[in-house]
This record gives sequence, C-alpha cells and structure tokens, in this order.
Amino acid sequence: MLYFNCDYTEGAHPLILQKLEETNLQQTVGYGEDPYCQQARALIREACAAPEAGVHFLVGGTQANFTVIRAALRPHQGVISPVTGHINCHETGAVEATGHKVLEVPCGPEGKLSPAQVEALCREHFAGSMPPEHMVQPKMVYLSHPTENGALYSKEELTALRRVCDQYGLYLFLDGARMGYALASPQTDVTLPDLARLCHVFYIGGTKCGALFGEAVVITDPDLNRDFRYAIKQNGGMLAKGRLLGLQFLTLFTGGLYQQICQKAVQQAFRIAAACQKAGIETYAPSPTNQQFFIFPDEQLRRLEEKYVFSFWEKVDEGRTAVRICTSWATRDEAVDQLNADLLALAP
Amino acid sequence: MLYFNCDYTEGAHPLILQKLEETNLQQTVGYGEDPYCQQARALIREACAAPEAGVHFLVGGTQANFTVIRAALRPHQGVISPVTGHINCHETGAVEATGHKVLEVPCGPEGKLSPAQVEALCREHFAGSMPPEHMVQPKMVYLSHPTENGALYSKEELTALRRVCDQYGLYLFLDGARMGYALASPQTDVTLPDLARLCHVFYIGGTKCGALFGEAVVITDPDLNRDFRYAIKQNGGMLAKGRLLGLQFLTLFTGGLYQQICQKAVQQAFRIAAACQKAGIETYAPSPTNQQFFIFPDEQLRRLEEKYVFSFWEKVDEGRTAVRICTSWATRDEAVDQLNADLLALAP
Amino acid sequence: MLYFNCDYTEGAHPLILQKLEETNLQQTVGYGEDPYCQQARALIREACAAPEAGVHFLVGGTQANFTVIRAALRPHQGVISPVTGHINCHETGAVEATGHKVLEVPCGPEGKLSPAQVEALCREHFAGSMPPEHMVQPKMVYLSHPTENGALYSKEELTALRRVCDQYGLYLFLDGARMGYALASPQTDVTLPDLARLCHVFYIGGTKCGALFGEAVVITDPDLNRDFRYAIKQNGGMLAKGRLLGLQFLTLFTGGLYQQICQKAVQQAFRIAAACQKAGIETYAPSPTNQQFFIFPDEQLRRLEEKYVFSFWEKVDEGRTAVRICTSWATRDEAVDQLNADLLALAP
Amino acid sequence: MLYFNCDYTEGAHPLILQKLEETNLQQTVGYGEDPYCQQARALIREACAAPEAGVHFLVGGTQANFTVIRAALRPHQGVISPVTGHINCHETGAVEATGHKVLEVPCGPEGKLSPAQVEALCREHFAGSMPPEHMVQPKMVYLSHPTENGALYSKEELTALRRVCDQYGLYLFLDGARMGYALASPQTDVTLPDLARLCHVFYIGGTKCGALFGEAVVITDPDLNRDFRYAIKQNGGMLAKGRLLGLQFLTLFTGGLYQQICQKAVQQAFRIAAACQKAGIETYAPSPTNQQFFIFPDEQLRRLEEKYVFSFWEKVDEGRTAVRICTSWATRDEAVDQLNADLLALAP
Repeated sequence: MLYFNCDYTEGAHPLILQKLEETNLQQTVGYGEDPYCQQARALIREACAAPEAGVHFLVGGTQANFTVIRAALRPHQGVISPVTGHINCHETGAVEATGHKVLEVPCGPEGKLSPAQVEALCREHFAGSMPPEHMVQPKMVYLSHPTENGALYSKEELTALRRVCDQYGLYLFLDGARMGYALASPQTDVTLPDLARLCHVFYIGGTKCGALFGEAVVITDPDLNRDFRYAIKQNGGMLAKGRLLGLQFLTLFTGGLYQQICQKAVQQAFRIAAACQKAGIETYAPSPTNQQFFIFPDEQLRRLEEKYVFSFWEKVDEGRTAVRICTSWATRDEAVDQLNADLLALAP
Repeated sequence: MLYFNCDYTEGAHPLILQKLEETNLQQTVGYGEDPYCQQARALIREACAAPEAGVHFLVGGTQANFTVIRAALRPHQGVISPVTGHINCHETGAVEATGHKVLEVPCGPEGKLSPAQVEALCREHFAGSMPPEHMVQPKMVYLSHPTENGALYSKEELTALRRVCDQYGLYLFLDGARMGYALASPQTDVTLPDLARLCHVFYIGGTKCGALFGEAVVITDPDLNRDFRYAIKQNGGMLAKGRLLGLQFLTLFTGGLYQQICQKAVQQAFRIAAACQKAGIETYAPSPTNQQFFIFPDEQLRRLEEKYVFSFWEKVDEGRTAVRICTSWATRDEAVDQLNADLLALAP
Repeated sequence: MLYFNCDYTEGAHPLILQKLEETNLQQTVGYGEDPYCQQARALIREACAAPEAGVHFLVGGTQANFTVIRAALRPHQGVISPVTGHINCHETGAVEATGHKVLEVPCGPEGKLSPAQVEALCREHFAGSMPPEHMVQPKMVYLSHPTENGALYSKEELTALRRVCDQYGLYLFLDGARMGYALASPQTDVTLPDLARLCHVFYIGGTKCGALFGEAVVITDPDLNRDFRYAIKQNGGMLAKGRLLGLQFLTLFTGGLYQQICQKAVQQAFRIAAACQKAGIETYAPSPTNQQFFIFPDEQLRRLEEKYVFSFWEKVDEGRTAVRICTSWATRDEAVDQLNADLLALAP
Repeated sequence: MLYFNCDYTEGAHPLILQKLEETNLQQTVGYGEDPYCQQARALIREACAAPEAGVHFLVGGTQANFTVIRAALRPHQGVISPVTGHINCHETGAVEATGHKVLEVPCGPEGKLSPAQVEALCREHFAGSMPPEHMVQPKMVYLSHPTENGALYSKEELTALRRVCDQYGLYLFLDGARMGYALASPQTDVTLPDLARLCHVFYIGGTKCGALFGEAVVITDPDLNRDFRYAIKQNGGMLAKGRLLGLQFLTLFTGGLYQQICQKAVQQAFRIAAACQKAGIETYAPSPTNQQFFIFPDEQLRRLEEKYVFSFWEKVDEGRTAVRICTSWATRDEAVDQLNADLLALAP
C-alpha cells in the first residue's frame, strides 16, 4: 500500500537522523537549555526577523495549542476558532480541558475565519444587549495556516484580522502545524517575518514537515512570553532531552532545508492535482498546499483504495465521497508517478 | 416601572419568609443535615415517587448545572446541549471551566433537542470514520424543561431521548430552573414522577418559582449520587446554614404551594398572550408556560417601554423586535390588567 | 441541647429578616446591580476608607476563596497558606479544583503565617538551586483573620507580610469569614481601613457574623478587580436575586450593627473563658475572639456533652481532648449563664 | 566537563538510533497503532506476565503522571504522595493543574511511603471526627520506584501498600521513570511481574534508561484502562508518529537490552560509591541504584566541580553539601575511572 492519507507516515528527513547520530554521545544540559536549542532559536529568530521573540520547542501540535491558549487566557476568556479548527474538532477537547470555551464560528470549505466574523462576535459580546459577564469573553483568535483544508490566508487577510484583534484586545494565535507547506506554496504572499509581525504567537510545525516530532512556538508578545517555560513544564511539554528538539530545528533551518523539502512536497501535490483534473475528477476545494481534496465516485474510490490509502473527508452524496490526498517531504517521485498513472486510467 | 422581563424580580413567597422568621432562632446543625432539609427531602422524594433518590439543595442554577456535569463526567467526556442551552450561552463557560466541552446541537425557535439529533451525534462519534479518541466523547444530554424559550417536551419525546441515552450509555440531565411553570402548564403531560423515572438527574427550580433562591437536585442514578456531597462542597454550593434551603423547599412542597403559585403565573401569562393576540401582535414562538414571546414594531415597543420592562430577545428585522414577556408567582393581577389595557390600545 | 460548636447554628439577625420582609415585593434588577447592593457597596467602601475599591457580594466562604484565587492566578502560580488554612483543609480541594496548588507552610497553634516564612519560600523559589519553572510559582499569600484558631494578626505583622508580598510580587488575600469578631476584639489594633490599605483583596464575612449568608469581597487592586464579575458568574456565585446580599450587608453596615453584635459575641466568649479558668480547665490556645479552645478530661467532656454541643478539635493525649467553644451574635445570655454554671461545677 | 548530575545528558542507546534509521522511510499509520507499537506492547505484556494489561506509550514522565492521575480520579479525589514525590515537587503543579490535590505525607531521607502512613490518612478521612465531604477524598497512592532518592521498596512493602489500598478502595500507582535501575539492582526482590500484580498502573521509564524519550504505561486495572487513549490525546501525549515510541521500547525489550544497560549503570554507580567510601567521604543516604548521595566539604566540592557536574541536593551545614552523583546506561568506564581517581586523591 502507498500512503497518501497524511504527512506523518514516515520518520524524519535523513539529515535529521544524521545529526542525532553525530551528537548522540555528547553530554548536554536538559530541558531545552543546551547549545543546540540556543542555536536553533537564533536561526528561527533570524528567519522571522524577530530578534526579541521567545522561541520554545514543544513535542506536538495539540500540546502546543493548549499550552499557548491556557497560558494566554484568564479563566473567563475563550478563543475564537473556525468550526473546523483543529482545536475544536480533533483534540479531544484539550482546550476545554484547560477550562476555556472554544467560541466556534461557521466557515466555508476553505476553513478560514474572516475579520468580519471576529468583529461581529466581539461587538455582540462587548456591546450587545446582554451584560457581558454572563458570556465567555473573547480574548484570542485561533486560526491555522494552512487551514485544515489546505487553504492559505493572504497578507491582507491576516493584516485585517490583526486589526480587529487590536481593536478588541484579542491575541492572534496561528497554528502552523503545516507551516512549511504554506511558506513553500507558489500562491502565498505571506512570509515568516510577516507572521512574526502580525501574530502575537504562532508555531512552526516540525512533525508534519520533516522532523521526527516537534513544534517551534514563536512568541512575539512579551507578556505572553513571560513565564512560558512554567507553562511548558506544567503541561507536560518540557522534554528532558530538550536538545532532540533543538537539533531537529537546527537542521531544518540550516541551508534552507525546511523550505526545500516542503516545496518539493507541494510540487508533488500539484502533480497529483493536475492528473486528477486531466482525469476529470471533481475538485472538492482548491488548495495551494500539500493537501488536495477531490470527489470520487465510490466505485472508483474502492478500486484505488486497493493500492492507496487516502483520508476520508466527507460523504458528498449517495454515490460520491470527498477524500484528502496528501504529500509530504517524504513522498517519492515513483509513488506519485504510479498514483498518477492509475488516476489517468480512470478518465472516461 | 413594571417589570415583566423575568421571574426573579421580587423576593420570595410570603409563606417562605414567614417560615424563616418562625425558625430563625432555632439552633440546627449545618451543611444541609438539619431536620428541615430532611423533611424537605422526604416531601420531594414523595412528590417524585422516587423513594431512593438523592435530593440535594444547591443555591443557584449555574452552580447546579456545572456541579452535576462535573461530578458525572470523566475528563474526556462532554455534554450534548441545544445551541441555545443555558449552559452553552449564559453561564460564562462554567461547564468548560470544569474541563468539559459542551457539544452543541442546532435547534429551532422552541429550543428543543430531538432524539434523532442525539442519535446522529453519537453514531458519528462511536461509529464514524475517525478513531473516536480524537474527539470528545458524548456522555450526557442536557436539556431544560421548559426550554429557554418556554417550550415543553412531551412524555413521548422524553421517553425517546432516554431510549437513545440508554443505547449509547449517556446520562439524561434535565435543568428545571423553571420546573414549576412546566408542571403547572395546562399543556403538559409530564409529571414529576415521569421526570424521576426518565432522567438520571434533574432539578426542581426554586429561585424562579417562589423561593428566595435554591434548586433541588434530584439524582435517581445511584452512581451519580455517590459522593455528590463532596462535589457540592468543592464547587462552593454547600451552604453553611443549609436549613435555609430546606425550609424553602419544605414550604413550597407543603400543601401544593409550588403547583398553585406557578399555575397562577401561567394563567397570568396566558392572559397577556390573549391580549397580544387580540391586539394583533405577532407571536414569535408559542409557549405553554410563563414566558411569552412577541414581535413588536419598534415604535410601539419604545412607547411600552416607558412603563414596562421586557426582555430583549432578538432583532427580527429592521423595524421589529422580539421580546420576552414573563410572569411569575409574584405577578399581581393589577399589573397584568394595566399591561393588557396598554396592549389592547395598540390594536389598529 | 445548647450549641456552642460554631457560629452558624441560627438564622440571621432579626433586623435582616425585617429588611427582607419590608422589601419583599419590590421589583429590582438582578445579579447584584440593584439599588440595595449599590447602597451596601457605598457603606462598605466608606467603612474601609477605600472609595475606589471593588465590592462584590458572594454567597459563601469557600466560593469566595476559590473565586478570588482562580481569578488572580495564572495557571502555573500557587497560593501560600498556613497548613491549617481553611483552603488547605476544609474546602474539599476547591482551590486545587481550579488548578492551583496550595503551598502549605507549617504553623503553630495560633494558625498564623509569618513574614519570614513567606520570605524563605519565595527566596527558595526565585533564587534557589533549581530552575524555578519546575516548581509552582508563589503568587499569593492567603491568611485568615481571625485564623482558624481564633488568633489575630497585629497591624505590624500585616504590614510586614505586605512588605514581603511587594518584594516578591505576591498578592495578599485575607479571608475574613469571621471578620466581625476580629474587628470587635478588645485586643486588636487592626481596622477595616488598615485591611483595605494592606491587602490586595479580602472579604468581610456575613454568614458567621449575623447574616443568613453572604461574604463581601473587597478588592483594592484594580487589576484583580477587572472582569471580576465574570469570575463570580463562572464560578456559580452570582445570585439571581442579588439584592438579598445587598440588603443584608446594608443592614449590617447601618448604625454599626455589625460591630455591635460581634462585640457582644466576643464578650460572651470571654465570659465562658473566664469560667473555664476559674474552674481550672486548661487553655489549649488563647484567643481574643469568639472562639475559645480548652482541654477537658474526657470524663468531664462526656458529661458536658449531654447538654452542650462543642466542636472537637484534637485528641491531646490518652485521656484529654481539646474542644472549641464558640459564641456568635445569636448566643443568648441565659445559655452562657447555664454553661458557666456547669463549668464552675467542674472545679475541684 | 564530565556530567554525573543526572541520567539524561546523552541521546539514546545506539541500537535505538539504528532501529530508527532502518525503519525511517517505511510508512505506517500514526498515533501508536502501528505494528512496532503492537510488537513492543506484546513484549512488555510478556515481560510483565500480564497478558491482558493495557500498554500505552507516552512521551515523558510528567505527562505520564498527570495523565494517569487525571484519568483515574473523580474531581473530589486526591492522590497520596510522599512529600518528596516528583509530582509534589518538580512538576510545576501539573497534578493540581488537572484539579487534584496531592495529599502529601512526610517521609524520611529514603523518600518512601509506608503502609501505616497511608492507613492513618485514610482512617482519618473515612472515620475521623469531621464529615469527610469537607476534605479531599484519598483515592490513589503515588510512589516512585526507585524513589527520588534512589531507594527501593521491597516486595513485602509493596504487598502491604497494596493491601491498604484494597482496604480503602485506592489505586496503587507506581512511577517507574528510573525503573530499569530498580530492576537491575542487586538489592531488589521486586520483578516486573510483581509490579504488574501489585499495582493498578505503573510505568517503565525510557527517557532515563536508554531511550531518546518515552515511558511505557502499564495498566492492569480494566476500569482504568477504559478510554485511556482519549486521556492520552486530550493531555497532549499522543505522538503523531507514535511508532517512534514503539520502536524504542521494542529495541529495549529485545534480547534483554533494558536490563543489561541499566545493570551496567548500577555497577558504575557502585564503583563510584566504593571510591567515595575509600576516600572517607560521608554517605548522605545509601542507595542500591544508579543515584548515589554523598556529603562533601564545600572546599573539596569546589575543586571537583572544576571538572565534574554533580547535582546539588542539600546544604547539610555551614561547610558541607550533599550532592547526587548519577550514572546512566551511557556512562563510560573511562569517565568513572577518572572521577574515582580524583575522589581517591581527596583521601586524607
């Protein structure tokens, strides 16, 4: 079977394993205060043009999400998220488990949040007909970039979101679990320095972008950064051998590796999308990143699934199903070639 | 100004104050273990035909809601609620503050949850395409009776809801903050013994039905009842002078007082509704209880609001607004007469 | 039986019931925004010489404690308490249930916390041998006045505690569940304005000092006061008929009632203490307030407990037991006379 | 500098890196459901002689501790721990952050909990003079083996602890972050099957015993195991590339590697202890595992610390300091030789 269902089916980029091997018997201090973590932090600050930012390495995405949110909010405050946001759907209520309501907002197939939606929700809270203290106070906007559906925010959209956040005193928090594929998309106008400028806090995903595991949380707001290491420890995210995270991000941010391997993955995804289109397969939602969404007649899908694993997305109607086809830094050319051949064979 | 905006603008039924006065200088043990609480418990068990039920007196509704939910659920479990449920809208995220997601389900203007909705949500969780552990596990159904919009469940609906709960191992929890007005409605076929039989836990509201404050939580499920007094204490609901609650429910459940005073309130509400209809005022949603919902042209409303306080419900369109008109055990005949005269004067 | 076990065995001072009666059928807005709450707030601010303080009425002490602590602390912060502090022993872990560790510090029989203890704990945290983020950060000092054992802090002690708090950025929070008996003690040099000046937040107990229930939380720190109403609502402490709290504190703070009734209670306690001493009964710990602690031979105690209820405090040794004897605003002269006669009869 | 301060200064045993390398480009499903995790589970169940046990791989120790505790306890329940327990001291209040009080019990320099202490605490709670619901209900015993101070429980002690747990309905939870060094100690009579039989849940540490990271939680109580994967996900412990954990434990439990490498470490520790004794350095507390505790005159320590890193333990008196000297699977013979030479040179 060939897996195209997600971007975490393999281990890590070989250079990362090599780095772990080279340094394996060195002795360093623990908990992320070793020289490798320091170097990785410096490289990330530089890539973000944010020399003062706090950079913290956490093990995984759910952990990064709830640790940031819990550290940022007072108990009566909540976080605005599109209804399809990862924190709202697929983290077993981890945010609620820290005591905070996810204030969900409807969204279209792209999975994006609009500045107008945030504005409306805040206006209703702070200037509505009810005394506000009977409702959860909005204090943070959560979005992912790319979204769960592979879409990207434009610089203009992010700028407008930040403007609304400033107007109502909200934090802007961007989940970048698939950040590499956003930065590497030919259709983006958003850079890491843009994100560092526009967000109070965001993270650069490692797990899905070439690392064994790990997310680099970048905090540009000094208040949020204060005491953040306590939050990491309390929430179980402080790795004893913290250098494992430092070494991985050091490797990814040396010589442009992060950008290169994600760019390749996006190209692979585009090749598959082109084959689908040629084969007359209907697009579910267009995506400029490594996730592609198509609608297959169930009979065709059954046959493809004898050789390939996709990710079920939605039952579109009686006889058709939307699936996600996903590439990664590890997707081999031959795998794409084979898939494409089988897709083209579906053409009527 | 005459207040018709809610059912907690006055103090308590005079017999309750009289009871407090009579017993004021008696010495009793604290924390709800005094003889008055014991007597009130016995009367409530009898009224519920539930001789084994746990009966616990809490101070308020939000407290009763989150205390029950927190005590019942394990951390990864959530509670299904209609989107307009009080716990979902107007309790400042108190349930989430105890760590649990409110699994909101859309609902119509009546504010009711249907068995089919609960079934669909559970089926998707336990037998959907995703491994369930990435999502919050549904474990409880929360509904209010009357609903936020004054509607009532039928015995058939509650029976069907309980059937789905049994199928998926969910608790059925009924918020009865306005219970008295439900039991006293001429349009209900649901009795206290029905509720005790169909719900795992519910409460009988005092605050809005004649008491100074207080809600009587009735727990028919022995597992839920175990250690519930720890939960009350931990969540700040254990009144030192617990007898104040016992005395109030003792009074309300003696000689049918609870039923009588709520029946009167429903009749008053029906008188107002009749006047509205006669005056040609549009109904927003029909209600068989003490809350009535009407749509007024804004100009009419402005004039009425010089003399009356209503509760804003919704802006229906550019020039019209829906309001709630609410009676209570304390609503005086003369107040209704005056309001009705002013309503009838609006007739074209 | 005559109860001397605690100060909440009766209802409320008759003037309070009278006030409830007089106002019973008036209509007011809910949730503590009515005119009676406003008047009570004004009187309390005046009594505290703190014109800018936030004053909030909560139903009970446990609720007041965890609501204040939860609202004040970030998740990684804890509250320093003497090991015998009410929050550490007798609130079913309500503070921990909001996510915060109680940093307990040993204390003597008086139940007091010393500035040196707080200083040592903070120095170890912030300047110890461990990186601080592996431990809970101290952020608040909790103390009660009178303490659980009836002792009082002097103005000098409170001033020194505040100085340490300022040095380490801690909040000073004083639990005044029995505040009235502290203020009314002939042995105190601490006034309400002193407390308002020295504490960031404290509360004036009603439940144990003449009210049916209720605690008035006074917040002098503007940061702590911001959004505190959300905290009250979220934690189940916002009474729908909030005026019930306002009316009680309005009564207590009119014409010096609070001071008078507590003074009487302290005098009664002193009369009992004098009788004990005359009878040669050993003092467990001296107390300048309404709680008195004595050590009885078990055989004597058994006989007294045929007529009186005391509060068990500690098994001192094989044959002797320490008990608390407690008076209140409601203790009748005749009850004290009778007890004293029986105590004196014990004299060898 | 040579690090003897802890057992997590290097990466992983070379066979683990080799295994990661070999499997790196294989595609597997995520979240711990891959074949490597399944194989590792089978090996661990076999090693524990517990064919029905749940085995779950978590990333770190703090995470394992609070995830287990949160999943096991109802909100009003707490966990008994020696005062020096890791959960009580060095996890930033992670357990309290999940809402549960750590019921600390004093302990001697060995850091052990006695059955009598547990019995006394439970008896006081369930059969004391106070109604129990005002206090946190004990429901779990937490201990570590080896303890924080390197001591070991005997089979008899663990059997007695389990007996008390059964008597009061408590769970017995054993933190085995350094499990390997316990099992490999020449002075233990406790085996993995013993632990599986005596504990309801325990974990086998990887991070400090040869892995890059990871702890294998073994749950023998079926109630505790139910829905545990939800708990892992909600608490941020479910690694997307879960196989990384499976591969490591698979390697450690193949061919007795875990036992071998930990045995070597204990021998190294004993060699150092022997040198200390020969040099006349005072023992702080004897330890049968890889941690050794000695008291040095400060002047000697200063000189040693020019070449070696130890772990500060306690200031014993004005001029002397206790330190921990720690070996691990990675400690090289030459490093021990060099240290020993320097230690012996201290001999008078």
